[in-house]
Amino acid sequence: MAARPITFLSDYGNSDEFAGVCRAVIAKISPESAVIDLTHAIPRHDIARGAGALGRALPFTPPGVHLAVVDPGVGTVRRPVAVRVAEEDRVLVGPDNGLLSPAISTLGGALEAADLTGSTFARASVAATFHGRDLFAPVAAHLAKGASVAEAGEPIEPESLFVVTPVEPVVEPGRLLAQVADIDGFGNAALGASGQDLDLAGAGLPDAPTSVRLTAPDGGDGAARAASATLPVTIEIAGRKHHATRGRAFADAAEGGLLVYVDSSNRVALAVNRGSAAASLGVEPGDEVAVLLS
Amino acid sequence: MAARPITFLSDYGNSDEFAGVCRAVIAKISPESAVIDLTHAIPRHDIARGAGALGRALPFTPPGVHLAVVDPGVGTVRRPVAVRVAEEDRVLVGPDNGLLSPAISTLGGALEAADLTGSTFARASVAATFHGRDLFAPVAAHLAKGASVAEAGEPIEPESLFVVTPVEPVVEPGRLLAQVADIDGFGNAALGASGQDLDLAGAGLPDAPTSVRLTAPDGGDGAARAASATLPVTIEIAGRKHHATRGRAFADAAEGGLLVYVDSSNRVALAVNRGSAAASLGVEPGDEVAVLLS
Amino acid sequence: MAARPITFLSDYGNSDEFAGVCRAVIAKISPESAVIDLTHAIPRHDIARGAGALGRALPFTPPGVHLAVVDPGVGTVRRPVAVRVAEEDRVLVGPDNGLLSPAISTLGGALEAADLTGSTFARASVAATFHGRDLFAPVAAHLAKGASVAEAGEPIEPESLFVVTPVEPVVEPGRLLAQVADIDGFGNAALGASGQDLDLAGAGLPDAPTSVRLTAPDGGDGAARAASATLPVTIEIAGRKHHATRGRAFADAAEGGLLVYVDSSNRVALAVNRGSAAASLGVEPGDEVAVLLS
Repeated sequence: MAARPITFLSDYGNSDEFAGVCRAVIAKISPESAVIDLTHAIPRHDIARGAGALGRALPFTPPGVHLAVVDPGVGTVRRPVAVRVAEEDRVLVGPDNGLLSPAISTLGGALEAADLTGSTFARASVAATFHGRDLFAPVAAHLAKGASVAEAGEPIEPESLFVVTPVEPVVEPGRLLAQVADIDGFGNAALGASGQDLDLAGAGLPDAPTSVRLTAPDGGDGAARAASATLPVTIEIAGRKHHATRGRAFADAAEGGLLVYVDSSNRVALAVNRGSAAASLGVEPGDEVAVLLS
Repeated sequence: MAARPITFLSDYGNSDEFAGVCRAVIAKISPESAVIDLTHAIPRHDIARGAGALGRALPFTPPGVHLAVVDPGVGTVRRPVAVRVAEEDRVLVGPDNGLLSPAISTLGGALEAADLTGSTFARASVAATFHGRDLFAPVAAHLAKGASVAEAGEPIEPESLFVVTPVEPVVEPGRLLAQVADIDGFGNAALGASGQDLDLAGAGLPDAPTSVRLTAPDGGDGAARAASATLPVTIEIAGRKHHATRGRAFADAAEGGLLVYVDSSNRVALAVNRGSAAASLGVEPGDEVAVLLS
Repeated sequence: MAARPITFLSDYGNSDEFAGVCRAVIAKISPESAVIDLTHAIPRHDIARGAGALGRALPFTPPGVHLAVVDPGVGTVRRPVAVRVAEEDRVLVGPDNGLLSPAISTLGGALEAADLTGSTFARASVAATFHGRDLFAPVAAHLAKGASVAEAGEPIEPESLFVVTPVEPVVEPGRLLAQVADIDGFGNAALGASGQDLDLAGAGLPDAPTSVRLTAPDGGDGAARAASATLPVTIEIAGRKHHATRGRAFADAAEGGLLVYVDSSNRVALAVNRGSAAASLGVEPGDEVAVLLS
């Protein structure tokens, strides 16, 4: 069996050698494994942001081992775990603090899990502040070389894993209410609502022709590219209303204008063309946003 | 045919998973291709900066596929393209918005090009805001595995590609006038003028001995290393004059002193030894700078 | 002989193509070599910070070639060198300005060294401001492909290499005095003192039970994980005293509380749980810190 690839996401940042040392530890144990860095600039200790990025990214990655470390409780009671999911025999490795939860859900659910405390794959001495180097990276590398989850640690019930339940949006005729789920480095603010939620809120309204439905039609956007229709829409945040354009591409809004669109992860999102929606609107994750369609 | 390497440059930044997801998409399609990240921290939407970096970097890279994404008009009328150039059968992939223009020119010009709209290599559903993941990365991976440009999209005339013409410097005896082309992360300001332009401006001047010519002599700088001669020179920006040292290495200027040199891409450039020329001089790309040699 | 892996650390930053171009140069010469980026965000010209990171990281990397470039004197009299060390036939490549010193020491000392000025492996023309691209990366790639240090340059005495001697801590009963050696991107401040120094300072004190010794017991922290004991301790900086908790994991201190611990590189260190010790205490590298244990 050839060595499987390892994807790697963390909040170690790029200014220190921490992520690099983990890559080195992997290369020492499983030199044939490709290491695919997803990002190491998850804001420090931001489990929710890391969990979102991991859940969005993994469906696009080759099957293999998925190492993720955002771990404010490193060295304390949270369990280090390896989790095998239903899709393509993928295995996730990281702290059991919610970081893996959306990805496990997206990949068909957990079939098998192990507590990595005392793993025989760990380094002989595990620093209480750097489980990435001494525990998670070595375990991931051994799994990529062919070890099983059962060999990596003590079996635990998949049902015992930390689960994060997303906040559901409120969908009414002409109105969608959701929380800001995530703000990316460009200031685009994604809401906890899908393109289908927005379509549902707009269903039957006279000013919502199907030609501007925000979910991408099958077959890509090629045909629609030059003829992207837009609609005016209103955003309400903390009692203040903002005019916006409902469209598909950033440039569907005027420069500096507010855009409501369905992002590349099928989330309703707010952007400012060539600007930052988060800065313009002053929103943060968890803030409530209403999209008024009529 | 073995899988070719893929170089990758973008403005996706390092704080999100965007570049990582593109790497993952490539690994899924062409797992044997080495992915060489050039940089992902081109300032957002700064096509000129990305174009400069790409044009400077590609001559140093192995031949293969060159993926580049700085794409403010993603999802709108600009064409996604693949371009085969004269040198070493290299293929560039990215938006046709000027980003590829200097690199195409540097690599001998375009021999063949294709519009990637509707490419059969694209993902089944192409998000209007993330062509990197859904169109450019898959196309690059298929090209690296051996597909031809003709298979990647509809043939277009190479002459129809977006061309950016650089602003030419003004070269006079004793004076070189040029625009700031690029400022790097250290604050070094490169001008739109070559070492040869500076030599030409200084030709015949009594105080410009050939031993301080700024273009590197063949055979490297080994011999000259310990005996780097310097000359005083004057910089004029917006009517203000600044004393500077004409030299070859940063340390040829005193600490905090202004240096005029020919940079590693053969451009006349301004640096402050252990400081930032851009901050000290307050210059930005597009600003006019005169170098007075006499 | 298969191509060896190359680790790469620099201060080139992530916002320009500099590190990427070096990776490309390596891929052109030794395409089979894995390139393991340690970090490229060493603060510009900060030789001490780069030297520390390199020395800490290399013991965790696979044996091979270790390229490191933090080089404020590039193009001037400092020598470019390749150094073979005692452990595992590893070869370090970089400027002889102290950057390599702790790593050489950690890896058993230098057995052989060469001055790379005029190396036949250098590019035909070496830019005085970019030895990374034109000299260090090509030399590293040729060494990784199997060339010897003697082939890379002129032999020099290993004893002639630049050596940096670390500042020793002062260890007294109940008191440890040391300088801040390094501050990481999270604001954790590591001191120039080891866990053994701290144990020694605390030896025989009535309130220092062995169960809270800070050095990790053999066999990892698994057993101790849920039962990490803590002790109150006092930190003195510039005459001001600060209450702190002596523990093993960040979460051993209350949120916002100051922690004294032994970090993953066996250094006594200060952290603030979910905060920045450097910002809270206002410390910088070189500042003196006393840890008062009684």
